[in-house]
Parts: sequence; C-alpha cells; structure tokens
Amino acid sequence: MQFQFLGTGNAAQVPCYGCRCPACERAMNVTTFRRGPCSAKIQVGEKNILIDAGHTNLTERFPVGTINTILLTHYHMDHVQGLFPLRWGKATPIPVIGPDDKEGCDDLFKHPGMLHFLPAPECFKPLYLLGIEITPVPLNHSKPTVGYFFNDGESSLAYLTDTLGLPEKTMDFLQQQRPDIVIIDCSSPPKPNPRNHNTLNEALDIIEHLAPQKGYLTHISHELDAFLLSANYPLPDNVIVAADNEKIDTTENMT
Amino acid sequence: MQFQFLGTGNAAQVPCYGCRCPACERAMNVTTFRRGPCSAKIQVGEKNILIDAGHTNLTERFPVGTINTILLTHYHMDHVQGLFPLRWGKATPIPVIGPDDKEGCDDLFKHPGMLHFLPAPECFKPLYLLGIEITPVPLNHSKPTVGYFFNDGESSLAYLTDTLGLPEKTMDFLQQQRPDIVIIDCSSPPKPNPRNHNTLNEALDIIEHLAPQKGYLTHISHELDAFLLSANYPLPDNVIVAADNEKIDTTENMT
Repeated sequence: MQFQFLGTGNAAQVPCYGCRCPACERAMNVTTFRRGPCSAKIQVGEKNILIDAGHTNLTERFPVGTINTILLTHYHMDHVQGLFPLRWGKATPIPVIGPDDKEGCDDLFKHPGMLHFLPAPECFKPLYLLGIEITPVPLNHSKPTVGYFFNDGESSLAYLTDTLGLPEKTMDFLQQQRPDIVIIDCSSPPKPNPRNHNTLNEALDIIEHLAPQKGYLTHISHELDAFLLSANYPLPDNVIVAADNEKIDTTENMT
Repeated sequence: MQFQFLGTGNAAQVPCYGCRCPACERAMNVTTFRRGPCSAKIQVGEKNILIDAGHTNLTERFPVGTINTILLTHYHMDHVQGLFPLRWGKATPIPVIGPDDKEGCDDLFKHPGMLHFLPAPECFKPLYLLGIEITPVPLNHSKPTVGYFFNDGESSLAYLTDTLGLPEKTMDFLQQQRPDIVIIDCSSPPKPNPRNHNTLNEALDIIEHLAPQKGYLTHISHELDAFLLSANYPLPDNVIVAADNEKIDTTENMT
C-alpha cells in the first residue's frame, strides 16, 4: 500500500489567516510549508481509500471512479467539509465509513446524495478493502472519533487523529500489533492542560510507547510549526514532522 | 458601488462531479463556464461587502482587512462553507449579518472565532455600510432566508437568492423601490411543482414584475445550463445568465 498525506494542518491551517508568525510567513512565501486540512489517502493501483475529507476540491483531485471508500475519523467540519460539494455528483455511490455518531455533520445524513454512509463498524473488528485489513480503534476527542490500523500483510500503519492520548484499550491493541508506522495528532507545542488534541508531549510519549520504525506528526498548528522553528527542538530519530503531499512507501519500513 | 459575482452555481456547482451532460462537458473544457458556490461582493474602494461565503478559499481571495462585512442570505452549507476555515484567522473580527436562524450551520455560533455574528436585522429596515443603504427582505426557502436591496443613491440592486417566488411583502417593497438591477435565484429549467428554488418560469416572472433595467439569473444548475444550450431558449432582452466573476458597473444602468 502507498500512503500519502493530503493535508497535515489543524482547522486553522498554515498559514493561518492574518497571522504574521515566522511559520505563517514562511508558509506564505514557500508553498511546500503550507498545511491543508488533515487528511490522507492509501492508494492501491488506481483506487484510493481516503482518510477524512477536509479538502474542498476532492472533485478535482480524484477523477470519477478513483475513490474506493472514504474512512472518516470523525464528523468535525475540518475533516468532512469536502463531502458537501462531492455528494451532489452523478456517479456510482461512494461508501463512507465512520464512527458511531448519530449527529454526523450538518445535513450530511439527511441529504447524502451520492455518498453511501455505512453503519459504523465495530472497533477492534477488522474490515477488508482493496486487500488491506483495516481495524478501527477508539480515540479520545470531543466528538466520537476513531483511528485506523492498516495491515496489508507486508507492513502496517496506524493513523491516529484527532486524539488526546489514547484510550487504554487502543494502546493495548496497538502495542500487540506493533505498527511499522504511527501517524499521530500533534496539534500544539507543549502546554499545560491540553484539551482534545495531543501536544508534542503526548504525541512523543505515544510514539515511544508504540516504538514504530517511524512516527509522523500531523494535525499541526502554526503555533507548533513556529515552536519547532524557534526552539530547534530535538526530535527522536524516528520522528518526522509530516508535510502535505508527503508519501510513505510502507514497504521500505519492513525489517 | 461595484458589484461582482463570485459564484453563480447551485450546490452541485458546474461541472457537476461525474456528469457528462453538454453543460458539464463544456465547463470541464472551458473554465469560464464553470460555476462555483453562489456568492458575490460589492466593492467600495479597497473594502468589500461579501454576499454569502460559499467559496472555501476566501482567505486567499481577500487579504486581511479587505472584508468589511459578510451578509448571509441563509445558513445552508453551500452559502457558508467558506466561513469554517476563515473563522480561525488572527485578525480584526469580521461582522457577519444574516437572517434570524438560531441553528445557523454546524458549530459556527458555538465557535465563531474571528467572526462576529451580529443580531439579525429587522426586515425592511435599512442598515448602512460603506455609504450604501442595505435593506434585508424575506424570501421563500427551506431555511430562514433573506435577500438584500442595495441603494447607493445613484443606483440600486436587489440580490434575491435562495427563493421560490417572492413573499407578497417583498414583492410590494421591491415594486415600490424599482431596483435598476435584479439578481434572482434561477436554479432549474421549467418543471412542475418546484420546491425551494425558482425555475426559469418563476425567475422570468419576477423580473417581469419588477421591470429592472437588467435582470441576472444566478444559483444555476448544470441542468439549466444544458437546457439553455439545447433549447436555444429565447430570453427577454433585459435578462442575462450571470457568469462567475462577472462585474456589474451599476452606474451604467442609470436612466
């Protein structure tokens, strides 16, 4: 499986409108430092599994027939806003899998259009798409939220956002599975009493506990980018600050 | 005042994802035929009054300080989706004026960020922005919705979407005001039992009743574009099918 980050920013994105901090200035001047809505894709041949749908130009990015399924972590707007224009398309329905959240977002469930919202899968029970075993795992957030553990038999990857820490059961499950790659919500610099999202402290702690070959930080705020710029903060060797459009060839990570 | 359409499409936009109708094929090949989310701006010097916020790249289109106020017609997603990324900006709060709708859209009222939602103004009672008299008028839609009548002392313009027909009081008010320009919801070709939006029949009827110098059709579906293409439907001389980015110099319309 080929994994690619489509967006690595938090809801404010980078640059944040009107902000003149060094991270936002840098992102205004150099587009590769910009961060769009936190989302990703896993590609198998010409088919894609999207993880979240925060980009609002999915209809331009993905020709008809190339989206196999959309996996949602949760129904906050920055993770689902791309579904609103997409739903009115004229094409084969796209299955959407997400957490058990009766509210969803705005009128998505009332007017799904070409989106086919499937019943929420049970956590820790694998489902299979394009030959990949995908296991939803519960996360700690302000709305029902799941992460996903992907295993294609050659390599494995855990995508864990949005979350503050991990529920004990999720940590136990992932410690058993030993993912090669861990992608984790890391929204802000260290700060006291974080809410709903990891700071750098929690993110590094989770990566240390799961001991993957590589840990990627995502859902990044301009404050975290500015902190990393100014502090020249030493990250562990296996930790990478993800970038928009960055690809991970998971087969490279096999031992 | 200088008026410009920012978008003239309905929620599906044109081209509609996956559609191969002549209107969508044309829009895929020639970008000037594309239609984005129905919205507009009125510019006075370097300041802008936005009418609706369906474009999701407002932060790129409008440098900080150039949005004076956002006028909302209603809180359907295709008219407000651009507010979600905008709200997390770091800049002087932007006043937002809209209809009396306690629900709003998703969590906009709960987490307004840099948006300053003002109490809904009374219909038929003018407010003043950038030297323009602006009068909200009620419309007929599936959510509380208002149109706006603009008068800068030299010329006048009524922006009326989304609506099916016009409430009697709104028609009476506008017939008294005699707007130079009428911009009207015209979502579909003629069809029986329309709901929530004008078809071409209602739109032309309203323009005939208000007798402006120019009537512009907006909130256009790919079905209407395809109908107009195939039928070579004769429109009255004063009726124009609006295009994205089209400008109206209202002073040209003075008698």
